Amino acid sequence: MITGKNYIGNKLSAKGTIHYKTFNPKLNIENEHEFTEANLQEIDEAVQLASHAFKEFRTCSGKKKAQFLRAIADEILKLDEELVQVYCSETGLPEGRARGERGRTVGQLRSFADLVEKGDWVDASIDTAEPERKPIPKPDLRKMLIPLGPVVVFGASNFPLAYSTAGGDTAAALAAGCPVIVKSHPMHAGTGELVASAIIKAAQNTNMPNGVFSNINSSGIEVGQKLVAHPGIKAVGFTGSINGGRALFDLASQREEPIPVFAEMGSINPVVILPKALHEKGESLAKTYAGSITLGTGQFCTNPGLILGIESDELSKFIKNLADEIIKIEPSCMLHPNIIGAYEKNKSKAVNQPDLHLVADYESDVQANFARQAISTVEGSIFLNNPTLHQEVFGPFSMVVQCKSIEELTLIISKLEGQLTGTLIAENDEANKFRSVIDALQNRVGRIIYNGVPTGVEVCPSMVHGGPYPASTDSRFTAVGIKSINRWVRPFSFQDWPNHLLPDELKNENPNQILRTVNGNLTTDKI
Amino acid sequence: MITGKNYIGNKLSAKGTIHYKTFNPKLNIENEHEFTEANLQEIDEAVQLASHAFKEFRTCSGKKKAQFLRAIADEILKLDEELVQVYCSETGLPEGRARGERGRTVGQLRSFADLVEKGDWVDASIDTAEPERKPIPKPDLRKMLIPLGPVVVFGASNFPLAYSTAGGDTAAALAAGCPVIVKSHPMHAGTGELVASAIIKAAQNTNMPNGVFSNINSSGIEVGQKLVAHPGIKAVGFTGSINGGRALFDLASQREEPIPVFAEMGSINPVVILPKALHEKGESLAKTYAGSITLGTGQFCTNPGLILGIESDELSKFIKNLADEIIKIEPSCMLHPNIIGAYEKNKSKAVNQPDLHLVADYESDVQANFARQAISTVEGSIFLNNPTLHQEVFGPFSMVVQCKSIEELTLIISKLEGQLTGTLIAENDEANKFRSVIDALQNRVGRIIYNGVPTGVEVCPSMVHGGPYPASTDSRFTAVGIKSINRWVRPFSFQDWPNHLLPDELKNENPNQILRTVNGNLTTDKI
Repeated sequence: MITGKNYIGNKLSAKGTIHYKTFNPKLNIENEHEFTEANLQEIDEAVQLASHAFKEFRTCSGKKKAQFLRAIADEILKLDEELVQVYCSETGLPEGRARGERGRTVGQLRSFADLVEKGDWVDASIDTAEPERKPIPKPDLRKMLIPLGPVVVFGASNFPLAYSTAGGDTAAALAAGCPVIVKSHPMHAGTGELVASAIIKAAQNTNMPNGVFSNINSSGIEVGQKLVAHPGIKAVGFTGSINGGRALFDLASQREEPIPVFAEMGSINPVVILPKALHEKGESLAKTYAGSITLGTGQFCTNPGLILGIESDELSKFIKNLADEIIKIEPSCMLHPNIIGAYEKNKSKAVNQPDLHLVADYESDVQANFARQAISTVEGSIFLNNPTLHQEVFGPFSMVVQCKSIEELTLIISKLEGQLTGTLIAENDEANKFRSVIDALQNRVGRIIYNGVPTGVEVCPSMVHGGPYPASTDSRFTAVGIKSINRWVRPFSFQDWPNHLLPDELKNENPNQILRTVNGNLTTDKI
Repeated sequence: MITGKNYIGNKLSAKGTIHYKTFNPKLNIENEHEFTEANLQEIDEAVQLASHAFKEFRTCSGKKKAQFLRAIADEILKLDEELVQVYCSETGLPEGRARGERGRTVGQLRSFADLVEKGDWVDASIDTAEPERKPIPKPDLRKMLIPLGPVVVFGASNFPLAYSTAGGDTAAALAAGCPVIVKSHPMHAGTGELVASAIIKAAQNTNMPNGVFSNINSSGIEVGQKLVAHPGIKAVGFTGSINGGRALFDLASQREEPIPVFAEMGSINPVVILPKALHEKGESLAKTYAGSITLGTGQFCTNPGLILGIESDELSKFIKNLADEIIKIEPSCMLHPNIIGAYEKNKSKAVNQPDLHLVADYESDVQANFARQAISTVEGSIFLNNPTLHQEVFGPFSMVVQCKSIEELTLIISKLEGQLTGTLIAENDEANKFRSVIDALQNRVGRIIYNGVPTGVEVCPSMVHGGPYPASTDSRFTAVGIKSINRWVRPFSFQDWPNHLLPDELKNENPNQILRTVNGNLTTDKI
């Protein structure tokens, strides 16, 4: 049931005076429930509870954390049709997408449960003492990863489940042993509250400390700023726009005690099509890419917003085919009037740049909040010298850049901002002739794809979802996959510490039989 | 031979107009060589060369990098007595310390050589494709760690070898595949140039690209600022003061493209002495700690600047013993007139705080630049409420805080800034009664020591040298040990990438037989 209130720990609370509603973009009307933004006292209370909960939660066993995470997954599934309906009413996305994203969210929670139950992830390392070593004895040192403390999570508008309230950031932080405070996304506050209720139920049923999770409503930017600036907060996870992520990164960096912010932000996901591939499969590529560009109304962070090739008749033909294919696709609804407003504005800003040619723009009538997909094209030298063209147009829009030569193509790629993904479309061994292009592309992205589309982020240990700035604020981490837990932990050493006072992970007898590096060797053996 | 010039890549260069000399604190005279600060053109040239070298160096094999690192170690040893003499003349430190630190430096270089030669460190992970998976096929994903790009290293004044030109930051960055530009420390510019010459010789002898290393002289802060602000620089390593480290962190965070700064900064390394231990071994502890506080004239980042206990006659006796013992120790030379100036100023600022009692202060005459060691004591409530007393006094100075109760002790620890280390002195099972104290201490430090001294940082995989701010700017990394390489690398994914285009680490045949996680299992097997 949606109450419109905040969860301050286990307690529903609505002391604030600012109220707001979510919006159904498909029906173009406000949804019924009214939400109350948290006030300063509630924010502070949530942080105090989280700090207090951390004292217990930080040493919670892997087994207990796994129970908690699995219980969250189960409680989310129990929300059943209510969750699907609220999700759709707040996003305009279809039911199939809601169910798919729910499956992914639940899958992420369970994979983190497996990870912490197994326990190897703490990267335990033991170097035993050598009391007789000359000139000085060698101490016993034992190291493992421990949680940072309370984490604030800002979910994404475009993934109300998988990258939001109980999404990857939250799942990873809870798995690490960090209490989480979610700054609920105003566009899907109802979905957020339902998921929050599932987390709170799971926390209570598995005896987690009060404050291990809070869900904070907010309609503007102030609540998030207060949370990030609060001395009790030790890290921040964010998925969203460059402006939003950068503002939080700046705020966190300027604190008296700076804290890490992992913000996954904008990306135009360059796709390079090599000549032979264009020759061999230009037509089917046009169809595939029309689909990828419009998938989810172009509202994927891995949307291919930039396609690069070398000028030729075949590239011209590809552009025409792509234009033809994309116009055939039925327009679909964007998440919110603000999002479509930004799309129309940014698209118009891009297409009004000198020497950019619009080759497709859906012109028939569309419903309110439905996006008109579009394709544009530009010469390499024009693109290179106009930074506006390098900016993301969030929505079903892509730009084909026609380069004069391999050298110009390489130069353009090397001048791109950091990206989540880069894609290479090549035929047989032609990639060998384009090593400079591949090297340049690899240097700008977090993931490189061969003969595929960038949309679709597989959740698995070998995934990197992140990349050089501004794809993320710290390319040394990934937002997806079990390794994303590394954002919320720090290594910690015990020197000459008595065995009975050590955490189980580092005890001589290795009670959980985890894999450890002992004097340089990986083993599950006792010492 | 010392020329006083910069190494801009392999070339000696001195185009600047600012000149300076190093200082012999023991003789209280300037050393003979004159150094030329790099000018803007030289700084830019070094970064351009590093960016260019990165294109080749980033894919350099582990075997070749290992040759390079071992050659650096060998060339440093070949500098032989010249290096020892210059080191001593620029620091006032004894020859034994020079040799010991050289051994550690060479050992670090060799341990990184072993690491990259073996190759497992890239954390290779492979999830193979499932083309038949429903509803969508699973792609093949392969991930490994790759270098960030050119790194700027700021060495520490107090470790002219192990934490400087070819110290841990440089060794880890080169091992990762990142070119390094060292901002040479002005107090040991001669030592720096000699070590730089060894690195350049090693780079040339092992055919490394020009620009893989540069050594930049500077007498002030501007050169370092220009380097950190340069768009070609992708990460920064720093060891030194809080003010210096924070300024660089702020600069790097405010760049258009923010870059990671790992700064290891101040720490007062709290030591907690429990009552039973005080009773059983108070006398020997006083002797041990007088030694630890004055070791290297108190110029260790792990110097025990704060000792905490619960008020008792035995604590009073310990304070008296510590005072007696420390006065017996012969004063020794600090690194530089500026360092001793800061020591005297900060010590005087501390001892002039209300209700702080100076219980030992070496009063006999001392040579110029020799430090007078001192011990002070204060009540817990006074310490708690006076932030000045929480600040590091870099030098042979320590403060004993007398707490009223376990609760006050716990509260004080929980209010400390982040620290590199915390130490617990306990007898038999008394630690069990002080779990709240231990928990609070663990939450504020990077390494916790049982019945020892914090001085002395063992170089081994289980070491953490870092900690919550301001011990470091990012507690998620360590500055010492092979894992310190993680500061300079990022994960990178290849999706559906052709086997022959993959780096060796991710190829099906696993040519280097490294340990990889393949579909969740650790193995050296082929695919």
